[in-house]
Amino acid sequence: MKTPLRLLKQISATLLFTLIALTFSPTQAADGKPNFIVIFADDLGYGDLSCFGHPTITTPNLDQMAAEGQKWTNFYVAACVCTPSRAGLLTGRLPIRNGMCSDTRRVLFPNSAGGLPPTEITIAKFLKQNGYQTAAIGKWHLGHLPQYLPTSHGFDSYYGIPYSNDMDRIVKGSNVDLANKEDYKAYDLPLMRNTEVIERPVDQRTITKRYTEEAVKFIHHAQEKGDSAKPYFIYLAHNLPHVPLFRSEKFKDSSLAGIYGDVIAEIDWSVGQVMKAVKETSEKSPHSQTYVIFTSDNGPWLTYKTHGGSAGLLRDGKGSTWEGGMREPTAMWAWPKQVNSGVVQEMGSTLDLLPTFASLMGAKLPNDRTYDGYDLSPVLLGTGPSQRKEMFYYHGAQLFAVRSGQYKAHFKTKTSYVKGKKMEEHNPPLLYHLGHDPSEKYDISKDHPDIIEKIKQLAAEHKAGIKPVKNQLLGKIEG
Amino acid sequence: MKTPLRLLKQISATLLFTLIALTFSPTQAADGKPNFIVIFADDLGYGDLSCFGHPTITTPNLDQMAAEGQKWTNFYVAACVCTPSRAGLLTGRLPIRNGMCSDTRRVLFPNSAGGLPPTEITIAKFLKQNGYQTAAIGKWHLGHLPQYLPTSHGFDSYYGIPYSNDMDRIVKGSNVDLANKEDYKAYDLPLMRNTEVIERPVDQRTITKRYTEEAVKFIHHAQEKGDSAKPYFIYLAHNLPHVPLFRSEKFKDSSLAGIYGDVIAEIDWSVGQVMKAVKETSEKSPHSQTYVIFTSDNGPWLTYKTHGGSAGLLRDGKGSTWEGGMREPTAMWAWPKQVNSGVVQEMGSTLDLLPTFASLMGAKLPNDRTYDGYDLSPVLLGTGPSQRKEMFYYHGAQLFAVRSGQYKAHFKTKTSYVKGKKMEEHNPPLLYHLGHDPSEKYDISKDHPDIIEKIKQLAAEHKAGIKPVKNQLLGKIEG
Repeated sequence: MKTPLRLLKQISATLLFTLIALTFSPTQAADGKPNFIVIFADDLGYGDLSCFGHPTITTPNLDQMAAEGQKWTNFYVAACVCTPSRAGLLTGRLPIRNGMCSDTRRVLFPNSAGGLPPTEITIAKFLKQNGYQTAAIGKWHLGHLPQYLPTSHGFDSYYGIPYSNDMDRIVKGSNVDLANKEDYKAYDLPLMRNTEVIERPVDQRTITKRYTEEAVKFIHHAQEKGDSAKPYFIYLAHNLPHVPLFRSEKFKDSSLAGIYGDVIAEIDWSVGQVMKAVKETSEKSPHSQTYVIFTSDNGPWLTYKTHGGSAGLLRDGKGSTWEGGMREPTAMWAWPKQVNSGVVQEMGSTLDLLPTFASLMGAKLPNDRTYDGYDLSPVLLGTGPSQRKEMFYYHGAQLFAVRSGQYKAHFKTKTSYVKGKKMEEHNPPLLYHLGHDPSEKYDISKDHPDIIEKIKQLAAEHKAGIKPVKNQLLGKIEG
Repeated sequence: MKTPLRLLKQISATLLFTLIALTFSPTQAADGKPNFIVIFADDLGYGDLSCFGHPTITTPNLDQMAAEGQKWTNFYVAACVCTPSRAGLLTGRLPIRNGMCSDTRRVLFPNSAGGLPPTEITIAKFLKQNGYQTAAIGKWHLGHLPQYLPTSHGFDSYYGIPYSNDMDRIVKGSNVDLANKEDYKAYDLPLMRNTEVIERPVDQRTITKRYTEEAVKFIHHAQEKGDSAKPYFIYLAHNLPHVPLFRSEKFKDSSLAGIYGDVIAEIDWSVGQVMKAVKETSEKSPHSQTYVIFTSDNGPWLTYKTHGGSAGLLRDGKGSTWEGGMREPTAMWAWPKQVNSGVVQEMGSTLDLLPTFASLMGAKLPNDRTYDGYDLSPVLLGTGPSQRKEMFYYHGAQLFAVRSGQYKAHFKTKTSYVKGKKMEEHNPPLLYHLGHDPSEKYDISKDHPDIIEKIKQLAAEHKAGIKPVKNQLLGKIEG
């Protein structure tokens, strides 16, 4: 119960806040451009946050972010594995358009020769051209040769591991056993600053912490000049909860959900630190406006059992074009001007971030290429519905499924990461109503030949718009 | 963006509210007894609320209730089907102690002769003895002969359907088809006022609405005398979302999740109406304090596909002792003095409501019988942890599984409502760590013989405390 004294204090605090608000009206200046922060987890499942229904993982900061902002329940990534998903997010284009997907080598490896082509315009490059400061922190996985690194793709700086945290393995043993032994030296992974390796093997136990500190430092530095500071874009791509799982001392044995829960708790802490830094700097730059987006690159790696996450009620996980592979728990939040708060059940995608950011900062995208994204700013601002009405689900370089409205047709399916499971073709395609049946349990293809025809036509039109390009994932470094 | 005018209005509103708060300090009077409202859904799945992760069902009121209050993620019912679950909630005792469970007839039917024995002390009877007004609204299912009705079990009044809404069927056809045709006349179900049938067949399309209006009316009447009013207990047990699904005109086609989503949206509306009535009456009775608990009787009836709900990431559903059958989405909320807000990952059960209410209103339970519940008031008030460290999972009259801490041992399992599936016995029992593995996927019995021994001993001690009683579910009305 509040005592009168506490209530009086509350009144004073409210008055003070209101006076500050009146003095420094936190409206974005007419010509001001907002800051953008994308926080990207790795292999996080749809069901792994408390606000998405996990019973033993604790995520108070993400829950707050989703409650104050928007919780997106139908938000998709561009591909069901790492490299193509990241290419899609940063370019606003499906990876099939720039060679960043393949059926055999599905991601880049330390011996890969390719990367995101220099002709691609990443969010960073686009924003930098429009006067932004840009920073990439964390996992890259779009090419680790110098010409493909973040600093060659529009980022002023880079600090992170250039690919997955289970690569460069030099010790035998399962990723689970090595994580349980906290044996980070089993992976000869590089940590890079811009184009230089600064630590090898990187101590993964503190990697989430260090990425977070780097981001927080950047936010404070970027806003040092107050309202005359350049706007910024931060791409904070955590290497975790991808296996092997590591977390810093503070989070060890902190979760009822075990080591996986510890790792998510640290990522949640990281989100809280970023929100805190945004709020603090916003007080010093009262005309600034910052958008923060949280999502992940693909579904949970189910093969790793309790070291992998959960897709909640969605079917399958990472590597699959069932919903569990490509639908991610997503929150969008802004400060000081909040987004239109609530649960968003409309469709959105990481492919939409570039067009959305372009719209929010008032610039047009170049018209020399095809984009696969939509401007979601009307949803953020509460001025209109999502323009995204369909989603194309690629498995490697093949179109496996198409969603149109609430209907999803699977032309091909493959259970991911299970030996002996082969691709199955479906004619007629399997059809699910994702609104009524989000777990994709009840095939209703027999009842809706008309919808199947419509989706087939949509797929054909889409395929007709795809031009052959050089594949980037197959080439290997010689010698 | 807030304009200065809107901010000034906000200040005024805050000041006004604060002045009201200072004048009518909403502390519970030292000798005041709080009101209790239990809202009990029927066959609602763990994953069916937005705040428990459902992507297309919309539940803003329940989300608010869970956010302002407590969201319980490990809250259990006393049994995996209707009749015994309700008996457990109202008596604080496992149904095995009073004959309200059986292996063959698992619930009461319209031709049943039995019911909850008059020797049982329900929450209503206990509170009535302590000066409360009591009302049962909705589904009863603890005996429909006069001696078993709510008015014989401590409730001042009853308004509702005395058993499940798929009973008294007089027309052939599936429950799904009949619901899709809105054919409520296919069920010759009675609606009762106290001990009289007042409508038959009841128009189920408006039943959730009518139950809600009855509850809201009761709340307002009960508080008519302001602070001198008797405290009240309302048991609002919806008949839905049990099949056949019906909803009122306003909610038809309102949800992306189809008819099931419409039904949940109406129940969510109902929760909002109750919260609103509590807030309104609380202004007139400033010393009153009201606790509202929302949960359901058992997991989703998966057989009914898109007319049944989803257990989210939990395994199986109604009728089963897997988590999906007995763990329910639960929210606890209080007004005007809020409960200790947050996500509660500790264990709780409907069996705990009677001891918790007794503690909150300051009375002792009779000591002439065994109770299976614990006082959860320390968790509500933020003064201590949950005392519940174990859970016993009954399937009919057999103990199938036992949870101790995060470990759950299944001695027997049976997939529910699937023809041909037989009960399986497990020796050693299957063992799951529910914190790490809430979906009960990875049996770890081989790694933990010590824990299995401990749980076996717990089960043996529990069984030793069960005395044989007359079964109430097997007897049929003659003729």
